[in-house]
Amino acid sequence: MEKARVAQTHTFIQKLLDEKNYKELKAYLSGLYPVDIAEVFDELDEDECIIIFRLLNKDQAAEVFSYLNAQRQKEIVSSIHESLLHYILNDLYFDDKIDFLEEMPANFIKKLLASAPHEERRLINQFLNYQDNSAGSLMTIEYVDLKKHITAGQALERIKRTGVDKETIYTCYVLDEKRKLLGTVSLRKLVLANGHELIDDIMQTEPVKVGTADDQELVADLFKKYDLMALPVVDGEDRLIGIITIDDIMDVIEQENTEDFQKMAAMQPSDESYVETGVLTLARKRIVWLLILMVSATFTGEIITRYEALLSSAVLLMAFIPMLMDSGGNAGSQSATLIIRGIALGEIALKDWPVVLWKEFRVSLLVGAALATANFLRMLLLTGTATGVMITVSITLVLTIVAAKIVGSILPIAAKALRLDPAIMAGPLITTIVDALSLIIYFTIAGVLLF
Amino acid sequence: MEKARVAQTHTFIQKLLDEKNYKELKAYLSGLYPVDIAEVFDELDEDECIIIFRLLNKDQAAEVFSYLNAQRQKEIVSSIHESLLHYILNDLYFDDKIDFLEEMPANFIKKLLASAPHEERRLINQFLNYQDNSAGSLMTIEYVDLKKHITAGQALERIKRTGVDKETIYTCYVLDEKRKLLGTVSLRKLVLANGHELIDDIMQTEPVKVGTADDQELVADLFKKYDLMALPVVDGEDRLIGIITIDDIMDVIEQENTEDFQKMAAMQPSDESYVETGVLTLARKRIVWLLILMVSATFTGEIITRYEALLSSAVLLMAFIPMLMDSGGNAGSQSATLIIRGIALGEIALKDWPVVLWKEFRVSLLVGAALATANFLRMLLLTGTATGVMITVSITLVLTIVAAKIVGSILPIAAKALRLDPAIMAGPLITTIVDALSLIIYFTIAGVLLF
Repeated sequence: MEKARVAQTHTFIQKLLDEKNYKELKAYLSGLYPVDIAEVFDELDEDECIIIFRLLNKDQAAEVFSYLNAQRQKEIVSSIHESLLHYILNDLYFDDKIDFLEEMPANFIKKLLASAPHEERRLINQFLNYQDNSAGSLMTIEYVDLKKHITAGQALERIKRTGVDKETIYTCYVLDEKRKLLGTVSLRKLVLANGHELIDDIMQTEPVKVGTADDQELVADLFKKYDLMALPVVDGEDRLIGIITIDDIMDVIEQENTEDFQKMAAMQPSDESYVETGVLTLARKRIVWLLILMVSATFTGEIITRYEALLSSAVLLMAFIPMLMDSGGNAGSQSATLIIRGIALGEIALKDWPVVLWKEFRVSLLVGAALATANFLRMLLLTGTATGVMITVSITLVLTIVAAKIVGSILPIAAKALRLDPAIMAGPLITTIVDALSLIIYFTIAGVLLF
Repeated sequence: MEKARVAQTHTFIQKLLDEKNYKELKAYLSGLYPVDIAEVFDELDEDECIIIFRLLNKDQAAEVFSYLNAQRQKEIVSSIHESLLHYILNDLYFDDKIDFLEEMPANFIKKLLASAPHEERRLINQFLNYQDNSAGSLMTIEYVDLKKHITAGQALERIKRTGVDKETIYTCYVLDEKRKLLGTVSLRKLVLANGHELIDDIMQTEPVKVGTADDQELVADLFKKYDLMALPVVDGEDRLIGIITIDDIMDVIEQENTEDFQKMAAMQPSDESYVETGVLTLARKRIVWLLILMVSATFTGEIITRYEALLSSAVLLMAFIPMLMDSGGNAGSQSATLIIRGIALGEIALKDWPVVLWKEFRVSLLVGAALATANFLRMLLLTGTATGVMITVSITLVLTIVAAKIVGSILPIAAKALRLDPAIMAGPLITTIVDALSLIIYFTIAGVLLF
């Protein structure tokens, strides 16, 4: 439905572009959501984008601009008049402006800062320096500040006067003369309050807050836990520096999840989108773990070499190795994934390890027995495998599944205990470890039962 | 920091409980966030929870109650006075009430409904029937509705009068006499507008909206795309039935991500937390895919059987099989994960498949060459492997990585084209396919070069 609507919008815009019917195009554009226009930009070529951009009214232009990717932003900046550029940059919220400037070449920033007022220049430089993924890098400065001794009615008047340029007016910040954060008050409270009530009496004191250097993952956790709309960021002396709004947090949550997906598939995390990332960068992010895992897998090969004599006298044993290794790896990945996710969502804590271990042990017995039974029946009915081999394979399968699930559930918790990221203890690494374990179990049992 | 604070809160509450100092405990509790109190409940036993619950003031009690897990909710319901229960249920937002009722036994609901007014009984029954994971199951009914011919000032008066019971007042819904949704207007617009402006003139017409049966994933996507705070849900005749608020969407996003993690690790998805899920359920969610993959892996074993003669004349070849299979599986998982995630976030579309294929092909050549070189040097310097074998292994490694990355990137896109969930084409399945491919490549090359 959504997709169809965007496609329709695109088709109609394309038609008007082709007909050079700019008057109707301008009218049509003015009725669209900025984010929908930005999405159509992905489908158009550079010249078409610039035509459309010039047809937007100024306020729409700034918002559309904030949704574009860095490449399109650069194209537009280099082709619009300087006065329009200044208008747009002034109209952007501060966090979007910083995001844009971060992608621009140094000399562009220098030129832009040269003409900016002193205070703005200082702020831009300060904000450009916040670490990626820190609370500071998510902040904006367009918030409503109030004094505690005014009334709710006066506060509403102030919001009416100054609110139009603020990113949010739904949470207001109560500051003292030194800009120290005393509390927050929601617009909801202000509207519902009696107009004579003092801010001091209705504000939430000791609000949840973070420092500029705090990690964005902590920020996202606080938003989720306290159902926040916005979160104040303070410096060491508790002075308000900026606020973080919930729209940016939705992106942070997806970004943190993407990083976990990447780490769990043995890649170094990246926050660039796949389509925009170059081949060399993609290769570089993947090679390190592949190398580590390849070298580890050679040890598994050496186990085979050690049992060469046994194998050459019963080559049939070979045929079951992929099934045993794969089943072990898959069973281990399942456990590791559940535990890593449980830790990430705060559902599983370090102290829960005995609970987890005992649960996984019972699950692995059930699953292992089921797999071994299915496989035993398959061998019995469909192949002429010798009884000794069938028993060896079945016992190995159960023990491998048990070992895999224990390794898969304990390693992420151990990583957490060692203050490593549990996400690295996922499928690929678990598989490599379980491969070796399963072969040792297999050959040991075969040695006892068959020779 | 967060964790330490909860632990501290818990310690202090426990101390006051042990001292039976209920007066101070009551005062202390009144200053805490409800969600923090609910978190401490996880650490206390049933009797202690009930004592604390009774010490809460009534409004806090309802909010704490909404944060508790189903088990604790049941314990509390069975131990508090019926009048308090009714007070709490009345104070809960409708979506929280439905979530609670869904977990309660049928006779409890029946008893409760018996004493409820007719209209509420009808609504509860209607809401209990919405499909899990549908927009309907996320709705609440406490919204502000406005008529289009009133002024902004009158609207603010209405909000002042009725807003205290609404889940959000930040987006208001403009309805006609038949409750058809004409538009939305934000509290921001109402506050900033001139008091005499008509709602009709300032409302957003054609607002983004969904139907009750729409999937929660679509709902979450709309929230992310349009930076919404709330989303209206309408019936077939465009009449407003309820609204969805952003706090519930944060949970939906995490839940959808969890499901993807589970599917990608070859499990059937579950939205229950690990700790609360029983061993049998856990085993059941895992066994299906393990069985499918185990049977598939037997085919890989049969490839080995077919080349038994070749293998027994060069048992050394065996030693490289785990390394080749693992590296291929890992390389394929990397590609599959990136593509699945890209599709989920809307960054990669069906039509992008040639771009993806070409990119993965180049990445795989780079990565394959790097791995083969590293492995060749290792063999050359550390082992006395024959040159023919070294060459066979190196060529196989490059070709396996290329095949793995192509399979890993194309299968998720193919799944999408077939309207299957791309997430099932992840690590485990890719590994099984790539295992077979790598062995066929290996034995073919060995047959040509070595015999």
